[in-house]
Amino acid sequence: MKIGLLIIGSEVLDGKISDLNTRFLSEYLRKNHFELMLQLTVKDNQTDIHQGLKFISNHCDVIVTSGGLGPTRDDLTKEMIASFFSKPISFSEAAQKVAETNYSRLNRPYPGKDHPYSLLPEGFLALNNCCGFAPGLYAKFPEKVIFSAPGVPKEFQMMVNDYFPSLIFSQNPDNGLIEVVNFRTRRVPEEKIFSEVDPELWDKLEAFGDVSSLPVLFGVDIGVKIRAQTEEELQEKKQNVLTTFKKSPAHSHLWHIGNEPLEEVIIKLGVKKKATFGFAESATGGLCSHRITSVSGSGDAFTGSVVSYDSKVKAHTLGVEQTSIDTYGVVSLEVAKEMARGLARELKVSIAISITGYAGPTGGTADKPVGTVCIGAYLNGEASAEKFQFSGDREQLKARFAQAALMTLLDKLETFA
Amino acid sequence: MKIGLLIIGSEVLDGKISDLNTRFLSEYLRKNHFELMLQLTVKDNQTDIHQGLKFISNHCDVIVTSGGLGPTRDDLTKEMIASFFSKPISFSEAAQKVAETNYSRLNRPYPGKDHPYSLLPEGFLALNNCCGFAPGLYAKFPEKVIFSAPGVPKEFQMMVNDYFPSLIFSQNPDNGLIEVVNFRTRRVPEEKIFSEVDPELWDKLEAFGDVSSLPVLFGVDIGVKIRAQTEEELQEKKQNVLTTFKKSPAHSHLWHIGNEPLEEVIIKLGVKKKATFGFAESATGGLCSHRITSVSGSGDAFTGSVVSYDSKVKAHTLGVEQTSIDTYGVVSLEVAKEMARGLARELKVSIAISITGYAGPTGGTADKPVGTVCIGAYLNGEASAEKFQFSGDREQLKARFAQAALMTLLDKLETFA
Repeated sequence: MKIGLLIIGSEVLDGKISDLNTRFLSEYLRKNHFELMLQLTVKDNQTDIHQGLKFISNHCDVIVTSGGLGPTRDDLTKEMIASFFSKPISFSEAAQKVAETNYSRLNRPYPGKDHPYSLLPEGFLALNNCCGFAPGLYAKFPEKVIFSAPGVPKEFQMMVNDYFPSLIFSQNPDNGLIEVVNFRTRRVPEEKIFSEVDPELWDKLEAFGDVSSLPVLFGVDIGVKIRAQTEEELQEKKQNVLTTFKKSPAHSHLWHIGNEPLEEVIIKLGVKKKATFGFAESATGGLCSHRITSVSGSGDAFTGSVVSYDSKVKAHTLGVEQTSIDTYGVVSLEVAKEMARGLARELKVSIAISITGYAGPTGGTADKPVGTVCIGAYLNGEASAEKFQFSGDREQLKARFAQAALMTLLDKLETFA
Repeated sequence: MKIGLLIIGSEVLDGKISDLNTRFLSEYLRKNHFELMLQLTVKDNQTDIHQGLKFISNHCDVIVTSGGLGPTRDDLTKEMIASFFSKPISFSEAAQKVAETNYSRLNRPYPGKDHPYSLLPEGFLALNNCCGFAPGLYAKFPEKVIFSAPGVPKEFQMMVNDYFPSLIFSQNPDNGLIEVVNFRTRRVPEEKIFSEVDPELWDKLEAFGDVSSLPVLFGVDIGVKIRAQTEEELQEKKQNVLTTFKKSPAHSHLWHIGNEPLEEVIIKLGVKKKATFGFAESATGGLCSHRITSVSGSGDAFTGSVVSYDSKVKAHTLGVEQTSIDTYGVVSLEVAKEMARGLARELKVSIAISITGYAGPTGGTADKPVGTVCIGAYLNGEASAEKFQFSGDREQLKARFAQAALMTLLDKLETFA
């Protein structure tokens, strides 16, 4: 079953808002063993909507639309769908009922029979909208299924959640199962993992399904799309692809199999190991802490941080020796170690991670140019540090430094007893 | 000139990542007086890429593609563009030069002549990639222009910035001048500024051009799109619209005219006033510091921060009294004041800002539900604090808390002598 999404919204193409529905629907479909085949965004005018419906209809079995169901003059979706399927559009008790219910939920009187919400193309179902006003639309024709929801992300998402299982997924009970096994590697660039590290990796994985490769901040995410008819078959194939990866030299770069963000993996592991941690952040300026605290419940493992941007803070709060800064430079393995040690002492955490580097665009030295970062760690009474060299602008460098620091934290948590 | 964007990336349709390039390109085009007509996302396979190129080519004059230019086997864009325009693809000195330069920037040896980066379809230009490896592609045919950039957002954005003015906009030189004057207000919701505050504001501004209103985290941004044929005319109109706004009661909510991020405005003012500042961050978890340190040169005014996530850090490092926490609660004006005072003492900054709140989804109390935040400030020997109530999920709440804290810092900087 091929599913295509048509976003109807000039506001997206005008750069006023970001489309959030594509990301939602693609994730939702993946989790339910279906996939989104393509996605198209068009403006709110008759010609463009018609062309969009035609294109998706030419290439997909299921047309999903988002947007253009509101009451204003630029809301043309219902009218264009009716004309595309050559159906008359007229008053519908069912559609009016949905709209009336929504109005009464907010204690507002429904404007009446002539309101656009009361209209429905012939042969279409009106869908409930549990958190907005406009009804959705659904119809099944011999060769096409069409599903239309409002563009407001919350309304779109709730309507998909409410109706896809019964109206869409049920069309294709023999669709089989799909799962993307996501191998996440670190400390290796994309051009190396499929050549130097393991030139046969791609072929070996492709035996199980489509392979995709996504370069990320500090490594490569490798996806393998497995298809199966039964849950048993899926698990067996999954087991085989895991075993195959495990035998590859690339396995030494693996840090996680799955889709959880790094910060979630860290918090889970930290809580499991009853570890507490914190950061002494210089070049990352708070980003490591911000990422970690994006996880609900992070307080169970994350104690706090010191953003020691000025060297005086490194000296006063973290107890870094001025002679170390003078001798080795503020971006050095020695200072990174002292920062981590000082943070562990100040915040009484079991693992302290420190970051000192040059995020640019100015700064740096001849032997430590912009992009140089030293990541320190202190645990079990011992300090260690590692130097990295990255490229990019200030924003990218901060992001890469933070990723390296979080990966270091994950390393340390893995060995933490 | 009709411009269409083709996103080539299974990772977007698989729900692994969000497409950021559509939002960037649509905003960029608007700022440059052009518009995006449509946007299509397809998977990384030959059939789908070909269909995508065909659809965009059928409806647009300029085809922009994003993604599929990397070195792995699922990177098919270059090959598919060559086949779509019936051009042979072969080794290109120019393309190899671009790739070699990028490799040498990172001190890596270029893999050599046979590498995919060295290939280019006949009649195409190889475009520099200032922050990645893969060269971009450009060609102009009698009726079509094609521009291909990598999908990595930073690389896509830089390549568009670098080349659109000369390669794309120059195709249509008689566009005239447009400037959007952006009035940024704070501490006022959208529904009030154009009614209670100044009911005539919209009409008064509209005399100069299209008005747009964008509700932001802590206020409203009001844009006025001025059009002119000459630079002189543009400046004169701009002066008149500034004078008009100054006379409105809405002027008391204005904090900035322009597009600089809040953090840049803060750093400039801090440096000018020779102030130093820092944050005691609890609920924002490092986000205030991260935003401030995104500005190059922020170290001239920003000293550092303490992320006091655990109450023990509030007590130990910031010297908050346990009795204050017990009596007033950790989210209270009193604790916010003590946090700010403690930070000023610990970091010796002239202005200390503190944030303590409930970002959810769990936590909060009956009288201080999730979304409650207390922002404290300490300067010139005096502590003050203010309570706010926001709504949203964890990510939104952290962002709103941080915006309120930075706005408080701006307030304090404005009065700082």
